[in-house]
Amino acid sequence: MVYSVAVAGATGYAGGEAIRILAAHPEFNVTTVAGHSSVGHKLGEYLPHVPQLADLVIQDSTPEVLAHHDVVILALPHGASGQLAAHLDEHTIVVDLGADHRLEQREAWDAFYGGDFYEHWTYGMPELITGTTASGQYLRQREALVGAHRIAGPGCNVTAVTLAIQPAIAQGLVDGSAIVADLAVGYSGAGKNLKRMNLLAAEAFGSATPYGVGGTHRHIPEILQNLAHAAGRTAQDVNDYAVSFTPILVPMARGILAVVSAPMTEQAMQLSDEELHGIWQQAYAGQQFMQVLPLGVLPATQNIVGSNAAHLQVVADRPAQRLIAFAAIDNLNRGTAGQAVQALNLSLGIDEACGLTQIGVAP
Amino acid sequence: MVYSVAVAGATGYAGGEAIRILAAHPEFNVTTVAGHSSVGHKLGEYLPHVPQLADLVIQDSTPEVLAHHDVVILALPHGASGQLAAHLDEHTIVVDLGADHRLEQREAWDAFYGGDFYEHWTYGMPELITGTTASGQYLRQREALVGAHRIAGPGCNVTAVTLAIQPAIAQGLVDGSAIVADLAVGYSGAGKNLKRMNLLAAEAFGSATPYGVGGTHRHIPEILQNLAHAAGRTAQDVNDYAVSFTPILVPMARGILAVVSAPMTEQAMQLSDEELHGIWQQAYAGQQFMQVLPLGVLPATQNIVGSNAAHLQVVADRPAQRLIAFAAIDNLNRGTAGQAVQALNLSLGIDEACGLTQIGVAP
Amino acid sequence: MVYSVAVAGATGYAGGEAIRILAAHPEFNVTTVAGHSSVGHKLGEYLPHVPQLADLVIQDSTPEVLAHHDVVILALPHGASGQLAAHLDEHTIVVDLGADHRLEQREAWDAFYGGDFYEHWTYGMPELITGTTASGQYLRQREALVGAHRIAGPGCNVTAVTLAIQPAIAQGLVDGSAIVADLAVGYSGAGKNLKRMNLLAAEAFGSATPYGVGGTHRHIPEILQNLAHAAGRTAQDVNDYAVSFTPILVPMARGILAVVSAPMTEQAMQLSDEELHGIWQQAYAGQQFMQVLPLGVLPATQNIVGSNAAHLQVVADRPAQRLIAFAAIDNLNRGTAGQAVQALNLSLGIDEACGLTQIGVAP
Amino acid sequence: MVYSVAVAGATGYAGGEAIRILAAHPEFNVTTVAGHSSVGHKLGEYLPHVPQLADLVIQDSTPEVLAHHDVVILALPHGASGQLAAHLDEHTIVVDLGADHRLEQREAWDAFYGGDFYEHWTYGMPELITGTTASGQYLRQREALVGAHRIAGPGCNVTAVTLAIQPAIAQGLVDGSAIVADLAVGYSGAGKNLKRMNLLAAEAFGSATPYGVGGTHRHIPEILQNLAHAAGRTAQDVNDYAVSFTPILVPMARGILAVVSAPMTEQAMQLSDEELHGIWQQAYAGQQFMQVLPLGVLPATQNIVGSNAAHLQVVADRPAQRLIAFAAIDNLNRGTAGQAVQALNLSLGIDEACGLTQIGVAP
Repeated sequence: MVYSVAVAGATGYAGGEAIRILAAHPEFNVTTVAGHSSVGHKLGEYLPHVPQLADLVIQDSTPEVLAHHDVVILALPHGASGQLAAHLDEHTIVVDLGADHRLEQREAWDAFYGGDFYEHWTYGMPELITGTTASGQYLRQREALVGAHRIAGPGCNVTAVTLAIQPAIAQGLVDGSAIVADLAVGYSGAGKNLKRMNLLAAEAFGSATPYGVGGTHRHIPEILQNLAHAAGRTAQDVNDYAVSFTPILVPMARGILAVVSAPMTEQAMQLSDEELHGIWQQAYAGQQFMQVLPLGVLPATQNIVGSNAAHLQVVADRPAQRLIAFAAIDNLNRGTAGQAVQALNLSLGIDEACGLTQIGVAP
Repeated sequence: MVYSVAVAGATGYAGGEAIRILAAHPEFNVTTVAGHSSVGHKLGEYLPHVPQLADLVIQDSTPEVLAHHDVVILALPHGASGQLAAHLDEHTIVVDLGADHRLEQREAWDAFYGGDFYEHWTYGMPELITGTTASGQYLRQREALVGAHRIAGPGCNVTAVTLAIQPAIAQGLVDGSAIVADLAVGYSGAGKNLKRMNLLAAEAFGSATPYGVGGTHRHIPEILQNLAHAAGRTAQDVNDYAVSFTPILVPMARGILAVVSAPMTEQAMQLSDEELHGIWQQAYAGQQFMQVLPLGVLPATQNIVGSNAAHLQVVADRPAQRLIAFAAIDNLNRGTAGQAVQALNLSLGIDEACGLTQIGVAP
Repeated sequence: MVYSVAVAGATGYAGGEAIRILAAHPEFNVTTVAGHSSVGHKLGEYLPHVPQLADLVIQDSTPEVLAHHDVVILALPHGASGQLAAHLDEHTIVVDLGADHRLEQREAWDAFYGGDFYEHWTYGMPELITGTTASGQYLRQREALVGAHRIAGPGCNVTAVTLAIQPAIAQGLVDGSAIVADLAVGYSGAGKNLKRMNLLAAEAFGSATPYGVGGTHRHIPEILQNLAHAAGRTAQDVNDYAVSFTPILVPMARGILAVVSAPMTEQAMQLSDEELHGIWQQAYAGQQFMQVLPLGVLPATQNIVGSNAAHLQVVADRPAQRLIAFAAIDNLNRGTAGQAVQALNLSLGIDEACGLTQIGVAP
Repeated sequence: MVYSVAVAGATGYAGGEAIRILAAHPEFNVTTVAGHSSVGHKLGEYLPHVPQLADLVIQDSTPEVLAHHDVVILALPHGASGQLAAHLDEHTIVVDLGADHRLEQREAWDAFYGGDFYEHWTYGMPELITGTTASGQYLRQREALVGAHRIAGPGCNVTAVTLAIQPAIAQGLVDGSAIVADLAVGYSGAGKNLKRMNLLAAEAFGSATPYGVGGTHRHIPEILQNLAHAAGRTAQDVNDYAVSFTPILVPMARGILAVVSAPMTEQAMQLSDEELHGIWQQAYAGQQFMQVLPLGVLPATQNIVGSNAAHLQVVADRPAQRLIAFAAIDNLNRGTAGQAVQALNLSLGIDEACGLTQIGVAP
C-alpha cells in the first residue's frame, strides 16, 4: 500500500526536505503541496532539486485542501500548525514539524512562546531514552510511536543536544543543572525569513555569529523536557535541569555540530576513556542511525549531510572535570524531516529505515 | 626612522600576515624573509597578495641571515624559535609569534609541550588586564611592552578567550574554575601542515568539526595564566582556574568567534543587563581596538576580518545562571600578527595603532 | 543476484563516491577495497560517512586482490589502471574511472598524456548522442553498454560540456570549431594531491581561480571525440572541432557549472527561444537523469549535489550571435561514480536507475 | 585640507564600501550618510565593521541633506542618482557609483535600461586605455579625471572585463566582435534585494549559478564602449564589437574572476608566450594597482580581496586559436568604491593611491 501525503509549508526548508525524502520513499506518495504566498505556482519553481514532483501546483493551506490524505505533514510557523491541526480528521496521521505540540508543560510554552497552548503529541524522536529498566535496559520513545496518529517532530538543535548528552543523563554521569551546549549551525536552520538581513549570502560567507543567546532560545524547554525523560523522570522535573544554550551560525547550508558539556560526577571521574566510550556504544547499540565513532575520532558535519544519521562522541576533559559530548547531524534531515519520516514509518509499521539513508554526502 | 625587519617563517600564515601588515606600515621595512623548504624562491610565489615585496628572495632561517636587523619576527613551530632566539643580538627586538616564550611556569610547559623550556618574554597583549588599583583603575600589560626587546606574541585562541572573559575575572563576577570556552575557528588557524588531510578544501566546505578536545589543547595553560593576571594574581595561582576549551573548525578562512561562559556569582546575578554591559564598556574604555558592541548586538567574525579589532559582548543567561561573553577576532591579525605589530609599536614608541586598522573587510 | 565488487583507489574522492553509491545499491556488494598508502587501515578512517563498510580493511592494489570479483572499479591515476586492467580476467566487468581507456586516437593520447597507450573501452556515457537516424531519431551510447565488460568512465568536465552542447552539435546549430567552455568547478574535482598547496581550505574560501588553461587540459581531446560522435561522425573527425576550455576552481566541495558557447549558424539564428528550448527537450526526452529546465530557468549546482542528474538549459545570445548552453552536474556522482554505476547497471541488465538518485541535496 | 563627504545609499554594499575606505582616508571626512528605509538609525547598525562612524545618524536622501559637502557619493539604483544629481551644486564633486552617467550613447541606454537618459560624465577608470600615440605610447582616462566634477564610476564586471582584455584590443590582437566573457562573481555583486530568494545564504553555499544571461546584462554596452575607446575609437564604433557575457554567482562574498577570450589574429598567433605576456606588462607599466602576474601564474580572487588591485594574466590557447585574458578584482573595492576613490584623488590632485591599498587580505 502506498500512503497519500499532503505537505503544508512546502516551500520552506523543512517542508522541502520532507518532500525531498518522500519523493524517493516507496511507501508514500506526495499528492498535495500547500503554501501561502506561493499558491498557484508549480512546486518545481521552489524545489528544482526534486524533478519528479515539479508539476504539482501549490494550493492554499486550508483544512479542506489537506483533508482526505493518509498523512499530513505540517511545516509551519508555531501557532499556525496548532490551529490547522484542530480541523484535521482523527484518522489522518499528522506530523507537526513545528513547535506547537512538543511541550508537555504549559508554563514552558507560556515562557518561551506564548499564545494558545496546544496539546502535547507523541514525541517523534525514536532513540530518545525514556528510562532504564531494573535490569539496566534502556526504554525508548520508539515504542510510543507505533500506531501514533499525532506526532510532534523535535526541534533540530534539541535533537543534536539530546542525542549527544542523554547517555550521561541516563547514567547519572554529570550534573544536569550545569550543562553548556554550544552549537555550530548551518544557515538552513535559520529559515527563509527575508526580513533578517543577516541571512543574505554576502554577509554569511566568512562569518561566524551567535544568535538567540542568553537563555532565550525556544529550543531550551524542549531540551530540558528530554533530559528529564532520559533520566526516567517526568516533564515536571525539568527544573532540576539547566542548559546554557548558544547556537552559532557558521558558513554552511546544513548541519549542526553540538558541543555539550557538564561537570562530571565523582563516579564518572573514575571511569577510563574506554569505559566512558563504552557507555555511549551501549546507549546506542542497535540504533542503526546512531553512529558512536571509534574512540578518539571526532564528528564532522560533512559526513552526515543529506542523511538521517547522528555521529556521536564523548570525551572526558579531566583537568576541567567536565564531560564533553559531541553530536553531528543534518538539521533538515535527522534534525527535522528525516526523523519525522522515521517516526512515520514506525507509526505505520513500515521498516523504520525505509526511504532514509545513514550515508552522508561527503566530501 | 624606518626600522629594518627580518621575518622567519615567511611562508606560513602567521609570518605571511606579519609581512602583509608591515608592507604597508610607514615605520618598518621588511628587508629579509626566511623560510625552510622555500629557500631560493621569490616571496611573490607564496604571497601574491603582497606585490611590493614579491621580488624578495627567501633565505635560510639561520642566525646569520636574521642578524643585523632592528627587528626580527619569528613565526616558527614551537621549539624552533626558542633555539634560534638564543643566537640573536640582545639589542635586536625579537617578537616570537610561536609558543616558546609565553608560559611563565615550567610545569605548564612540560605538561602541554615538553622539550626545552625557554624563558618567559614580555607578553604581547597590550589590553590584558594585570590587576586593579585601589581606586578601581585597571592596570594593563601595555606598560610592560614599552621598550621591551623580547616579546612573546599570544596565541590566537587565547587572545579571543582572554579578551572575552577578563572583565568578569577582574571583577569577580564568575566562578573562574568552571569556565567553558567553545570557539568557532577558521582554517588559517590550523596552519598549512599538509599531513593533516582534513585541511583539504573539499573536506572543509559544509563541515564543522572539533579538534584538540578534552583538555589537551596547548592554548589552555596560557589562558589560565592570563586569567590569573586579570585577577591581579600571579601565574602561580593558575590552579584556581579551569577552562574546558573546545575549538571547532568551521568553513571560513579567518576568524574566531569565542563563546566563553561561567557560573555567575550571586553578586553578578544582582546586576542588570545594562550594568553588566557597562562593566565591559568600562573595562575596554580607551582601548581603541576593543569594540564593546551596543547592548544586544552580537559579534560576527566578518566584521573584523583583516583588522586588529576585537568585537566584544556580554550576556547573562539568567535561567542557567551563567554569564556568557563573546569575542570575535581575526586569528591572523588581532590573534597573531596585528597584535604583534601593536606590541612592536609600543616597544619602539611608535603610535600604538600605526600601520593597523580597526576596520574589517565586510561583507 | 548480488554482484561482488572490488574498488581500487578506495580512499580517493572518485573511489569513495563509488563506494558511497554502491553501499546502498541493492544489487552490488562491495567486498574488497584497495589502496596504496592506506593499506592495512580500516575504510572507516577514510570514509566515515559510509558506516556500513567501516570495518573493511584496505588491501593492496594488486591483480590478486582484485581477482575473483564480478565487478572491479578502478579509480586510479592514469597509467596505473591501464597496467592493472591487463591482468584482470576477461569475464570480470571492469569500469575504469580514470583516463586510460577513454580516447580512441593514439595521437590525442600522446599529445595530452604520453606514456603507454591503452585500448579504447566502451565509453560509459549512456546519454551521449552517437548519431541521428534518417527519421530524425537520436542514436545513443546506451546500447553499446549493454553487456559491455570493459567500460571507460568519462571525465567529469567532459560530461558537463558534452551534455550541455551535444544537441547543438547533433543539429548543426553552431560552429563546432569555435566553442568556448568555461566551467565553475568544486574542489573535489581537483583531487587530494597534497603537493598542490592551493587545495588547502584556508586558501580556497573566498577565492575563484582558473587552472589547466591555454588548451592544455587533458579533458579537451575527450570532449572533441564526443562532439564528433554527437554529429554522427568518427573520432577521426575531431580536427573539425575545437574547444577553448577553462575550468575555474570555486569555493565549493562538489559541482560543475558549465557555460558552453559557440557561434550560431544562420539557421539557428532563425529559431525562436521556444524552438531552441524544444530541441533540448527533444534531445533529452526519455532520459530520466537529464532535466532540461523550463524556459528561462537557469541551473544551479546545489540542486544536483549528491545526485546523478544533469540540469540543462540553452539560451540564445542574439546580439553576440552565440548559443549558450548550460549544464550543472555533481562532478563525483554524475561526473564520475554515478554515471559509472548507471553504465554498470546497463551492462548487467539491471534497471538503469537502480541505486541512483535524480534528487539533489538542496539547500 | 580635509574634504567633507556625503554618501547616499550608505547601507548598500557599494555605499558601505565607500564609507569603509573613506573612514581611513586622511584627506576625506564622511560627515553625512543618507539612506531610505534606514533613516533615523545609526550607521553602526548597518556597518558594524566601521566603528569610527558608528554614531552617524542616517538621513534622508534629499538634495538638501546632500548639499554643502565638498564631495557627494551616490550609491543608488539607476534612475535615482540621475534625478538627485540634477539638484546638486556644480561646485560639488559628485561621484555616481550607479549606471546613470556611464553610457555615451542614448541608444544603448534605451536598449538596456530605459527611462530618462542622463548625460555622460567623466568615466572613472584611470587605467582605461583611450588610444595610442604615433610613437606607441598609451593614452589613458586618468588625464580626463584631473579636475573633473562629475565622475561616473564604472560597473564592477565591466572593470574586470575591460582590464583583462583591453591590451589585446589596443594592439589589435583579437577579433573584437567575437569576445566571450565568463565571470565567477561573489554575492556582494548581486546586492541586497531581498525579493531575490537566491541571495539567501542557505541556497548559496555549495552552488554555482549563472544569471543575467543571453546578452541581456546591463554591463554589456559599457564594456563595448570601453573596447571602442581602447582601440582609440569613439563610442559610435561600438557596433564593431560584441561580447557574449555570462556572470556566474559562486559561493564567496567578494571578488570577480573574469575569463575573457577572443579569436587571435594571425599576427597574434605569431607571438611567443613571452611576447604576449610582455604586451600586458607594457600595457600596465607604471599602473601601481595593476599587477600583471609572472608568466604562467594565474590570478585568484582571494589575493585581491579588500584591495584596489587587479591581478592580470594572458594565455594563448593555440589549439583553439583564442587568446584568453584573466582578471581578478574585488568587485566592491577596485570594481566600485576603491576605483571611485582613486578617481576622486585624481580629481582633487591628491596622490592617486592615497587611502587605497594594493594588498589583498589572504588567506
